Amino acid sequence: MTKRNIYLEDIPLDEARAKLQAALIAVGRAGPLPGERVPLKQALGRVTAEPLRARRSSPHFHCAAMDGYAVDAAATVPARETQALALRLGDEAHPVNTGDPLPDGTNAVIMIENVNQADEQTLLIYAAVAPWQHVRLLGEDMVATETVLQVNHQLRPVDLGALAGCGHCDALVRRRPRVVIIPTGGELVPFEHEPQRGQLTEYNSLILSGQIRDAGGDARVTDIVGDAVEGLREALADALAQKPELILMLSGSSAGAHDYTAAAIKALGEVLAHGIAVRPGHPVIIGLAADTPLIGVPGYPVSAALTGELFVLPLIRAWLGLAASEPVTIEAVSTRKIASPVGDDDFVRVALAQIDGRIQATPLQRGAGVITSLVRADGLAHIPRFHEGVDRGGTLSVALYQPLSAIQRTLMIMGSHDPMLDLLATHLRLRSAAARIVSVNVGSIGGLIALRRGEAHVAGCHLFEPQSASYNIPYLERFLRDEPVTLVTFAQREQGLMLPAGNPLGIAGIADLRRARYVNRQRGAGTRVLFDYLLGQNDLSPEDIAGYGHEEYTHLAVAAAVADGIGDCGMGLRGAAEAMGLDFIGLTWERFDLAIPRRHLGSEGVQALLETLNDADFKRELGAQSGYRSHETGIRVIS
Amino acid sequence: MTKRNIYLEDIPLDEARAKLQAALIAVGRAGPLPGERVPLKQALGRVTAEPLRARRSSPHFHCAAMDGYAVDAAATVPARETQALALRLGDEAHPVNTGDPLPDGTNAVIMIENVNQADEQTLLIYAAVAPWQHVRLLGEDMVATETVLQVNHQLRPVDLGALAGCGHCDALVRRRPRVVIIPTGGELVPFEHEPQRGQLTEYNSLILSGQIRDAGGDARVTDIVGDAVEGLREALADALAQKPELILMLSGSSAGAHDYTAAAIKALGEVLAHGIAVRPGHPVIIGLAADTPLIGVPGYPVSAALTGELFVLPLIRAWLGLAASEPVTIEAVSTRKIASPVGDDDFVRVALAQIDGRIQATPLQRGAGVITSLVRADGLAHIPRFHEGVDRGGTLSVALYQPLSAIQRTLMIMGSHDPMLDLLATHLRLRSAAARIVSVNVGSIGGLIALRRGEAHVAGCHLFEPQSASYNIPYLERFLRDEPVTLVTFAQREQGLMLPAGNPLGIAGIADLRRARYVNRQRGAGTRVLFDYLLGQNDLSPEDIAGYGHEEYTHLAVAAAVADGIGDCGMGLRGAAEAMGLDFIGLTWERFDLAIPRRHLGSEGVQALLETLNDADFKRELGAQSGYRSHETGIRVIS
Repeated sequence: MTKRNIYLEDIPLDEARAKLQAALIAVGRAGPLPGERVPLKQALGRVTAEPLRARRSSPHFHCAAMDGYAVDAAATVPARETQALALRLGDEAHPVNTGDPLPDGTNAVIMIENVNQADEQTLLIYAAVAPWQHVRLLGEDMVATETVLQVNHQLRPVDLGALAGCGHCDALVRRRPRVVIIPTGGELVPFEHEPQRGQLTEYNSLILSGQIRDAGGDARVTDIVGDAVEGLREALADALAQKPELILMLSGSSAGAHDYTAAAIKALGEVLAHGIAVRPGHPVIIGLAADTPLIGVPGYPVSAALTGELFVLPLIRAWLGLAASEPVTIEAVSTRKIASPVGDDDFVRVALAQIDGRIQATPLQRGAGVITSLVRADGLAHIPRFHEGVDRGGTLSVALYQPLSAIQRTLMIMGSHDPMLDLLATHLRLRSAAARIVSVNVGSIGGLIALRRGEAHVAGCHLFEPQSASYNIPYLERFLRDEPVTLVTFAQREQGLMLPAGNPLGIAGIADLRRARYVNRQRGAGTRVLFDYLLGQNDLSPEDIAGYGHEEYTHLAVAAAVADGIGDCGMGLRGAAEAMGLDFIGLTWERFDLAIPRRHLGSEGVQALLETLNDADFKRELGAQSGYRSHETGIRVIS
Repeated sequence: MTKRNIYLEDIPLDEARAKLQAALIAVGRAGPLPGERVPLKQALGRVTAEPLRARRSSPHFHCAAMDGYAVDAAATVPARETQALALRLGDEAHPVNTGDPLPDGTNAVIMIENVNQADEQTLLIYAAVAPWQHVRLLGEDMVATETVLQVNHQLRPVDLGALAGCGHCDALVRRRPRVVIIPTGGELVPFEHEPQRGQLTEYNSLILSGQIRDAGGDARVTDIVGDAVEGLREALADALAQKPELILMLSGSSAGAHDYTAAAIKALGEVLAHGIAVRPGHPVIIGLAADTPLIGVPGYPVSAALTGELFVLPLIRAWLGLAASEPVTIEAVSTRKIASPVGDDDFVRVALAQIDGRIQATPLQRGAGVITSLVRADGLAHIPRFHEGVDRGGTLSVALYQPLSAIQRTLMIMGSHDPMLDLLATHLRLRSAAARIVSVNVGSIGGLIALRRGEAHVAGCHLFEPQSASYNIPYLERFLRDEPVTLVTFAQREQGLMLPAGNPLGIAGIADLRRARYVNRQRGAGTRVLFDYLLGQNDLSPEDIAGYGHEEYTHLAVAAAVADGIGDCGMGLRGAAEAMGLDFIGLTWERFDLAIPRRHLGSEGVQALLETLNDADFKRELGAQSGYRSHETGIRVIS
């Protein structure tokens, strides 16, 4: 067995940054990069490397500010409204258009609206004009030598115009910081390849290079380097030979057997820090070789992306001469208790919506491997070191990934997640580009509780009640007694047993589940409520079912578990079974409704939702899905 | 003479937009563009043209979430902290690294920290583990078929990672809206050329194409088209043949003789609106030809840039499927009375700073020709139609061009503008990328009044007081009696007479100014105060000086007026004279100080300013400027 290197120090985030900064200052690489000359047409978004002064005044001659006639103001003194003054055209008055230079001997312009042309030679005016009236004086906008743009200024479209207007054809701008990215790991394959079992798709280089390009840097990704320390050392030496500003070594920075990053850095330079007290993302490595900073980026995608935000982007901005980026940060109410390791700076991705006037933050899945938690995040909550987390209802400081206005019009749907809610979101979005649905899966009962707590605008549920043999309504009475609620049908869905293709165990119904390993849904899920009911109908109890305790959180997750052989059977939607290539035995059609507290009915988002539910195109497309019927879609069960 | 077309209708902004929108809907071009397939590596910032679903689950097999040993959870049940359980390596326990697939027959991982290896064949564990502990289940992140990204979503780095992680190599994204930009006007020359008298630099195409590229569109700029209606019609026909989404015709949209834009549009299509009640920017033309929208963009750069913001960018975003952009809008207090034409939507560029807890907005020069007013603007105030403007102290609604945090740390300097304040700003910015100075020129006395009103943090002044023969202090007593103020010297500057090169009138001093046309500074300017004093010393009065009433607002503007022959002489700084190639007769050295109310001394910005004033590099560079001495720079005259 390979020797395993299991100890990482964990130094605080601030200390790690300070170490890196001190090392950069020591080697003279902490400040902005030198400039390069770039034509204005290619300078958009670049950062000035010197103050830019006007080379020429603008305008560079006195010119007419209006269409009209240029005159000598002194000659107009006798003109009166009641007594027109005649000026000889081409001599005392000269037709000029906006931008024309003032003819010699003139110092004012009379607007075309205020004159009459008596004949080919004669212009009549009716008022005296002041000198320089309607004249743009030389240098009105910019005077030669004055500073037009400061150093370390990111060039916008109007800046380019101003520079061109005062005689510049190019600009000295900061060279783009160059970053070499080395993905490492024998298990990785480029994302363009189909991975085999045991192989993982390498896509962190795509995230990091995207972040770097967005920030104005230049990223080059090398081929994937396998798990040999020599190969990695060679790749690092090659990268150093290119003299970049920064080298990132992706993955390989955990304590696993294949972790040669630290060894490779030590072979060519020094490790400044290994392990940083940040969650997610502990196994960050910071080093320096040949005066070049090196960052070992953890392999989990969320850790990798946050390492980019916390360590890489600040460097890029500093090298460009830009101030650290300052995301808009708001205070939000946490809808969950969040436990944080006391010693770590903890970064929690959250979904955000404004409900009853307060911005509510719902933490998303916290695993460092769940890239979709970053994709779905509306913001990043920071729970600083020495804090134990927040309680439900506590205040979180959240850096926004979305404009506040977008969050304020976000419709938060909690409860059971039907995959076709995504189809609804698509139609809503096609109807209005400004519409935004965020959907958080907490199960049917969880959704009703979320409504009661004011954490969601809408709850999706499909809860069967045996006594009344009805859906949802009895549960509203139970969980939302004091809240007037509108209940709208979303769809009828076919529930049944999902089985491996070919049904090897020959299962025909619930009664056969004694001899199968079942994959269950979590407590509070409508599908679990239904399953428990069906067990009772078949005189079975949970104890009879192997795997009853194996909980998954979505239909697709259950289907995936069955497809992968973790279990022999699960209950869920026909659509999920078919998506995974499973067999399906239909057991019942159930009604999936959306519950909406009446006080939210007036909001734009809810209105758009209700309209979309009744949209003929949407209903047609929904009804065409396998296992869905849309004939009752949009009907208000309780209005 | 050419027939002149002087009538423009003025329709309200909303009506103009609605007309354009209705025309686009009528020809089926109001909605998002179709998609094109783009490799993920090139898809950053592009907008999805369909919902993107997972093609493959991620992870696509159960894998170890930690470095450790994969085991069958059932086999671990007997393990106790006090009684280690031995597992056979390679049979009951398999070493795995993070990301490795779980070997067959295993369903949990024990962390490497929690085991002991007894010998080559034996692993000791001390606790039972639950099934699926430290295992990333197949589909934990994404399950095949689930929607990962919605339609009309702008792709960020993490989105690209997620797509790559679930089996995508490319994405269907909205085609970039194509815009052809036709600059028109016989007086225009490309900005790369040196313009002659009467020629203007064409740079609006640079602004508009920059705006379009920033927004995700594709802009192509044609050669400049002269002032012949045939040429313009031809250029328009050529542009239409390229089948772009939009054609912009720059300039030529005022009522001047060269305005053939409307005629050319009418020849090939129809004009929907000519003249829109927006300030600045009235002469916008909106038309449609061959189902393609056409916008005639006014020639003045501020009007052109605002036409881009108001009309072009919303179209680009709609074609990309994006919601209208929503700049952060704040309420600010106006430091000036602003008169607005009642019938117009008035857009006023403002400088912003937070002083005494309130965001103060100072309108910048309002001329449509002053592109630097857009360059310097921190925000755009909108005074809607049917409003007459605001009084000083009134509230303005301002859309921000800068992050609010940048405005909150902005140091507002009002008063006399010394050109070397820009050098100070440069050094301050090099010292701290986050430092921001905004400097507004209101003259020395204006600056002191601004301090009194709480509209600035710092005032620059050089006010000579004959009785005491001292600078600035007596004026502080006059204008800021109740305000404790620190006075810091900025520089000693050489003031004198600026004369055309070669001094053709042979002027030797103030006494000779009887026979010259003088160019004066505005009331309240320190240079004017000094000039009035020198007049008195020479037994002259304002009536003796031709041009006494001709006011300019800066040293450079006076120098430019003398250089251009508008006047024969002006008073100002040696540096300004030399910058314009003028002769200079030095008259006196004066002290330019910065007055800072003591209550602002604690702020970060003021502290950085004071440090920079005492920075050796800065003082050396300042002292090396012609007409400047820096030996007293940074000294507190009043602390």
